[in-house]
Amino acid sequence: MRVLAKDIAQTCRDKPGETVEVFGWVHRIRELGGITFVILRDRSGILQLVLSEAEGFDISDLTLESSVQVVGVPALNEKAPGGVELRGHKVEYIARSAPDLPYQVNADTGKIGLEAILDHRALSLRNPKIRAIFKVQSTIIEAFSQYLRGQDFTEIKTSKLVGGGTEGGAELFEVAYFDKKMYLAQSPQIYKQIMVASGLERVFEVAPAYRAEKHDTPRHLNEYVSLDVEMAFIESEQDLIDLEKGILSHIFIELARKNTADLALWHAQVPDAQAVCQAPIIPYEEALRIVNAESASGANKQKSRIFDINPEAERLLCDWALREKGTDLVFVNEFPRRYRPFYTYPLDSTRTMSFDALFRGLEITTGGRRQHDYQALLEVLPKFGLQEEAIAGYRAFQYGCPPHGGFAVGCERLTQKILGLNNVKEASLFPRDRKRIEP
Amino acid sequence: MRVLAKDIAQTCRDKPGETVEVFGWVHRIRELGGITFVILRDRSGILQLVLSEAEGFDISDLTLESSVQVVGVPALNEKAPGGVELRGHKVEYIARSAPDLPYQVNADTGKIGLEAILDHRALSLRNPKIRAIFKVQSTIIEAFSQYLRGQDFTEIKTSKLVGGGTEGGAELFEVAYFDKKMYLAQSPQIYKQIMVASGLERVFEVAPAYRAEKHDTPRHLNEYVSLDVEMAFIESEQDLIDLEKGILSHIFIELARKNTADLALWHAQVPDAQAVCQAPIIPYEEALRIVNAESASGANKQKSRIFDINPEAERLLCDWALREKGTDLVFVNEFPRRYRPFYTYPLDSTRTMSFDALFRGLEITTGGRRQHDYQALLEVLPKFGLQEEAIAGYRAFQYGCPPHGGFAVGCERLTQKILGLNNVKEASLFPRDRKRIEP
Repeated sequence: MRVLAKDIAQTCRDKPGETVEVFGWVHRIRELGGITFVILRDRSGILQLVLSEAEGFDISDLTLESSVQVVGVPALNEKAPGGVELRGHKVEYIARSAPDLPYQVNADTGKIGLEAILDHRALSLRNPKIRAIFKVQSTIIEAFSQYLRGQDFTEIKTSKLVGGGTEGGAELFEVAYFDKKMYLAQSPQIYKQIMVASGLERVFEVAPAYRAEKHDTPRHLNEYVSLDVEMAFIESEQDLIDLEKGILSHIFIELARKNTADLALWHAQVPDAQAVCQAPIIPYEEALRIVNAESASGANKQKSRIFDINPEAERLLCDWALREKGTDLVFVNEFPRRYRPFYTYPLDSTRTMSFDALFRGLEITTGGRRQHDYQALLEVLPKFGLQEEAIAGYRAFQYGCPPHGGFAVGCERLTQKILGLNNVKEASLFPRDRKRIEP
Repeated sequence: MRVLAKDIAQTCRDKPGETVEVFGWVHRIRELGGITFVILRDRSGILQLVLSEAEGFDISDLTLESSVQVVGVPALNEKAPGGVELRGHKVEYIARSAPDLPYQVNADTGKIGLEAILDHRALSLRNPKIRAIFKVQSTIIEAFSQYLRGQDFTEIKTSKLVGGGTEGGAELFEVAYFDKKMYLAQSPQIYKQIMVASGLERVFEVAPAYRAEKHDTPRHLNEYVSLDVEMAFIESEQDLIDLEKGILSHIFIELARKNTADLALWHAQVPDAQAVCQAPIIPYEEALRIVNAESASGANKQKSRIFDINPEAERLLCDWALREKGTDLVFVNEFPRRYRPFYTYPLDSTRTMSFDALFRGLEITTGGRRQHDYQALLEVLPKFGLQEEAIAGYRAFQYGCPPHGGFAVGCERLTQKILGLNNVKEASLFPRDRKRIEP
């Protein structure tokens, strides 16, 4: 019967002297006082092995990262990691590793370059610190879905092959679809709106989204996982901000509970529920004033005025919020009409019922109330240089579409900022950028 | 304070005489004994409204499918659906529906053709029976994920943009990716294998998959939701079949618990856990014998011999299993080498450690143990007419890749067969086939 590394100490206490079986990978081999210790790693953690008594086994033959099965008796040992070691009496190779590892798996992640990490995912994820990124991401997706189901949201799956872009035709990847041209969806925008109009009222989707943007920055991916939400019968973007606060609080609580060790590997802490609850909501114009005041003062001293909430402004605003409000999270609302897509609901002639969420210096969410009135959508088209054909998908709104709105959280960006990763690509298993198309 | 239709009767009992507010859509308007009754529909169900006393409201002005807000007092009424009605004293239009509905939303679904249902999702989903399909699908995805998390699986999200097909280059959609050609992934096959080799050991993914197949049948989609699983340290496909039985049992239990009303609308029943547990596992050659015996006898009388497990064979085998074993689910294993991809693990020189799951006459799963030894993969390539370059992604297997295997469940097919839908497209919100690229 297989026992996981994390459970060996307990097994040893519960059933002292009992023989157990472990499976895993050779993480480290070290000599200490004439004895060879092997650190075995499985999905749950690491375990010290003493193999000197294993019958017919030549330890000098052992290669790092080989997969082995060891039968032995666990013994408590204060000096071993986790306070327990396994004295193996039988070792079998499950799969021998070739000796020419492209890089040292058990090294500090800082010593492995980003390109090597991404080129060799099968090896880089063997490093517990790198694996922790995706254990955290798995919990983010789980907690996001769990919270929304608890609020009576239905999970949907919509097509990623669309006839055109919701937000205009630029920055789309073209797909040869039989004898037609289609595009990879930038977002499930129109589909989640249709679902709300259909009377499902509350929907969410976890799915890939595509942007054919050429820039290569630490904050952009050409393919990312979008955590999308849409709900009916809202008054304004305030309802959406409240919902996002609830979602983020739940994600942070679940991470603190389930991923304690993963967070510790990155020296990362999640905000507490109170800090999320108290996150300020700052109207766009005021946000710009704060940003320029920050920019003009102290260590951030800049020469030129900032005219929109660009990446530099996001950082400055988050610095301000952390210092003045003690929170990692800031909402900016009331974005000007010209910065938002045609379907955004107006607050007045110049402002919209829209918002961004900024977390630790980075925009992780864009959202807002949407125009639910088909005639009003028609009227606004010319201002955006669009034809009626562009809103063909919205024709269904003529049949009793209620007020609604929604938002999307970038899963990799949220992961990045929770753990303090330098580059968002570290939070994507197989990231795609202009050059990276493999593995 | 808004109250949902499903909660009105309880509210009426708990707080008799209290005024409540409801939001929803006008599902039906009917005259009965001189009184006009309006059936309101919200995401939770339906509610009878009596609006004759509503101030300044002209009921003859009301259009079907308009979205309304009604304030009133609930009263128990045995004759009303759910035993309660709302006597409205204030009605407001949230969004008026145009009177030219493309078809009658509250009609029997049988009277609405498939094309109309798919062309007008915002309206077709307002029909409770059609909406039930996607409430069921939401639970399938939830229960699938929940069960696997409980078994220590990590959820992953992998790229859908790949350099080439895992299973050969045919039937792929080409994507113009900047100055390169990429393809939409047919499955996350190689990625989930890499994740297993990386020491995550147990992974699952819920994501779209693409097949550029030209056939237009009631069982095919060009884009579908694939429920993928992969796990390490298995002996044979038996471990995978056991896992799939566990997953399906959990899905069926959750559906019976959470989607009772949705199942009832389709007169559908899910198999009980015992029936899933007892599902027979039939080796391929024996399955063919059974199929041909079925084909030659009784009502199924056929003229020609069946030489592989084709759609007709799937139906015959399921008929046999239901009659002889009392189960809706059959596993077929030990598929011949020639019918399986190069990475399938051999059982002997002609057979493989692979399986299909057939449910109510349809293949819903293909899976098997995979070859984990890189040298063995190299050796088998010529038989499949492949070059070493075709398995570039498998090079990581040289570094201690353990025995492993996995499978995928087609989410729409499972939904289809649970509810008894005629066409798998009914189980996709926005299905894609050769001609259908909208909405």
